[in-house]
Amino acid sequence: MILGGSMAQRCKIEDPSGFILFPLVVHSFDLVVSSIGILSIRGTRNGGTKAAIEDPMAILQKGYSVTIVLAVITFGLSTRWLLYTEQAPSAWLNFALCGLVGIITAYLFVWITKYYTDYKHEPVRSLALSSSTGHGTNIIAGISLGLESTALPVLVISVAIISAFWLGRTSGLVDETGKPTGGLFGTAVATMGMLSTAAYVLTMDMFGPIADNAGGIVEMSQQPESVREITDLLDAVGNTTKATTKGFAIGSAALASFLLFSAYMDEVASFAQLPFKEVDIAIPEIFVGGLLGSMLIFLFSAWACAAVGRTAQEVVNEVRRQFIERPGIMEYKEKPDYGRCVSIVASASLREMIKPGALAIISPIAIGFLFRLLGQATGQQLLGAKVVASMLMFATVSGILMALFLNTAGGAWDNAKKYIETGALGGKGSDCHKAAITGDTVGDPFKDTAGPSLHVLIKMLATITLVMAPVFL
Amino acid sequence: MILGGSMAQRCKIEDPSGFILFPLVVHSFDLVVSSIGILSIRGTRNGGTKAAIEDPMAILQKGYSVTIVLAVITFGLSTRWLLYTEQAPSAWLNFALCGLVGIITAYLFVWITKYYTDYKHEPVRSLALSSSTGHGTNIIAGISLGLESTALPVLVISVAIISAFWLGRTSGLVDETGKPTGGLFGTAVATMGMLSTAAYVLTMDMFGPIADNAGGIVEMSQQPESVREITDLLDAVGNTTKATTKGFAIGSAALASFLLFSAYMDEVASFAQLPFKEVDIAIPEIFVGGLLGSMLIFLFSAWACAAVGRTAQEVVNEVRRQFIERPGIMEYKEKPDYGRCVSIVASASLREMIKPGALAIISPIAIGFLFRLLGQATGQQLLGAKVVASMLMFATVSGILMALFLNTAGGAWDNAKKYIETGALGGKGSDCHKAAITGDTVGDPFKDTAGPSLHVLIKMLATITLVMAPVFL
Repeated sequence: MILGGSMAQRCKIEDPSGFILFPLVVHSFDLVVSSIGILSIRGTRNGGTKAAIEDPMAILQKGYSVTIVLAVITFGLSTRWLLYTEQAPSAWLNFALCGLVGIITAYLFVWITKYYTDYKHEPVRSLALSSSTGHGTNIIAGISLGLESTALPVLVISVAIISAFWLGRTSGLVDETGKPTGGLFGTAVATMGMLSTAAYVLTMDMFGPIADNAGGIVEMSQQPESVREITDLLDAVGNTTKATTKGFAIGSAALASFLLFSAYMDEVASFAQLPFKEVDIAIPEIFVGGLLGSMLIFLFSAWACAAVGRTAQEVVNEVRRQFIERPGIMEYKEKPDYGRCVSIVASASLREMIKPGALAIISPIAIGFLFRLLGQATGQQLLGAKVVASMLMFATVSGILMALFLNTAGGAWDNAKKYIETGALGGKGSDCHKAAITGDTVGDPFKDTAGPSLHVLIKMLATITLVMAPVFL
Repeated sequence: MILGGSMAQRCKIEDPSGFILFPLVVHSFDLVVSSIGILSIRGTRNGGTKAAIEDPMAILQKGYSVTIVLAVITFGLSTRWLLYTEQAPSAWLNFALCGLVGIITAYLFVWITKYYTDYKHEPVRSLALSSSTGHGTNIIAGISLGLESTALPVLVISVAIISAFWLGRTSGLVDETGKPTGGLFGTAVATMGMLSTAAYVLTMDMFGPIADNAGGIVEMSQQPESVREITDLLDAVGNTTKATTKGFAIGSAALASFLLFSAYMDEVASFAQLPFKEVDIAIPEIFVGGLLGSMLIFLFSAWACAAVGRTAQEVVNEVRRQFIERPGIMEYKEKPDYGRCVSIVASASLREMIKPGALAIISPIAIGFLFRLLGQATGQQLLGAKVVASMLMFATVSGILMALFLNTAGGAWDNAKKYIETGALGGKGSDCHKAAITGDTVGDPFKDTAGPSLHVLIKMLATITLVMAPVFL
């Protein structure tokens, strides 16, 4: 909204309300088209009969397709309606194409994540196969699957950034000096396009935890095996959709990152009353800022994973202690003391995140301030602000890659285990299954702690640098 | 040598031979001081007696200290001798300090790696402890240890880059326009300082495989347990020194990276007859180049790890087949068919590296060429060359971090296993030991394949971009 408004002002557009309100309208339409997409989901199986279970993923995908088609149509209509201006009569078409770029990016992200985490495809199947030769090969295969899964999303996002920027730039909108000015607005519109199906994607995300917990209730209430089979199937789909949403969120963050960089640079420039147009990494200090930014991502992931690992150890030791002290638990004769485990986990979840949280807040401020002093000492203008910008950009790049790696590897390990539990490669209780459980254990902190919190970290770094910008001058 | 020569020319120094020959002299002194360091290593234990075994790491460290002290002295002397010039009488002192920065960096790298991979320190001990709660917690702890271990080296290298550049810049050497010009030469001298103990560090590296293979021979020739205990101890030290050398190599590559960037930029500028002074990542295309460069590191690591994982699976299956077909092997009654396993590994080691190798060669050329075309279409000068420069820088940053992570995690897992084998936490054959073996299995492709080859990848990317620069214009 702010970006659209300020651009409209720069281009001297008579009625800037369309540019300002555009994001709100897109979000409103998102609610409508996503609702239609959700309502279009219908299982064909009747409740009572024992027909073959329809693939839940296919049903969800069908609803997603409906949403996408409607989103494309409404997005095109809203660009024509709100972004049409007489200065550049064909600009709205360029922005509509930007939106299409965003929608296609979202679709490809969903598809790629599905490919790497759904056990109907090659990667998870060969991950499951690697469990048959032991714990070690399972972990190696999972890590390399996760690392490999970063490649296609990065290619997609690269094409999206460049094409949206280019479409915006050639939209015909020029500022008072006659320079094309719509590039950044183009990437913003693409981000809006990506988010135009967000409500539906969020629905798919909710599906995962619901199915997972349903499975848990079925197991604890000792329902017959056939019920568990159905919830397992739903849970496997839930793992894929959860991974999908995380990929989607990272993708939109990557696309939006440019807006945050430029917001930061604009703010610094207007505060310092100095031009701030470039972040030149051929200058040693600025390169070092990038090195530190990437390192931040590694260190944060380390601490997030270590927190889960330590807590898991405490819980395992507590469970072992209870088993030894009260052997009746294993035969369902005695009730275990759930409370102790819950309190270990609850207090750890608060205590253990202090360190990574502090890292995220303190380090950009400390680095910016230090390099500000260094810049003043060596006579380099705006050095602190530039180093922080470079730190932000490198951290964003490393963060996107690391989060994709952690999310996909985690989802794939979980579903490889689920695949074996359907009876493949020896089924439940086999050595292969045990190796797959190891993978799932490693995957949990990856996909449920470090991965999603990296996403928060990237956005928080951007926000902190924006808020604290005056300190770096 | 080239850098020193061209700088001497730019500063109009009468006798540039000192600047040109400086690296050769430092390398020659390295041979002398490292030899003295090696000769200073003496075990105090007499061959025959059964005295307590002295800590081999302490002996190696003592030799390293001797080498460092001598290196500092000779480095100071050679800077005074070769880099003294009448234009800037105190420049040699600045460069001597640059060398000291390099030597301190090397020492800190060795120390940090030792801290994270030697089982006398906290990290490996708590990694070993995490094995007692299972395979999963062992892997999580190892990965977070590896990720965390990147932080201190990055801080050290950041301080080193900035201080060496600053020392060089303030050396008093100016070019014909009066601008300070020694910054880059400062980082080059720091790199030489870091390499001034290279021969000794290389000796420590050799120690690892020798001790490891000695252990293998002892085991295969069924020597008494006491012999194996000694070789195990040596092997554990060898793991640490191997990790140390890899960290040292990565550190010197990071320090030297700036020289390669600027060599590339100089070459492009002189070819294109256009100024090429900056790599501005606030431009979308150049930012995307960085994104692709970092992704390259992740993808390369993925393929390297996957290659080992696949080959390990093949070998496990082959060994299982032989055990089933010829049950006598387990009782030493029948000889296994070693040849089959050797041939699997040998052919895989050639075949599996084709894909990552091709990636390293083709991708910078393809990306540079593509963005050159895009730059020509959109009227951006030198776009291809700039995108490749950004790709190179981001790949270097991500590569340094990833290689540190992989090397340290691998070494730590190996030594956690060794620590348990000394009898801690249940000793050999316990569940804890089994979990530690899983960690070691995962660590092997990390520290022996992906980690070291990333180092090669970074240098290869720099070389390819240098050689292929004319294609990007």
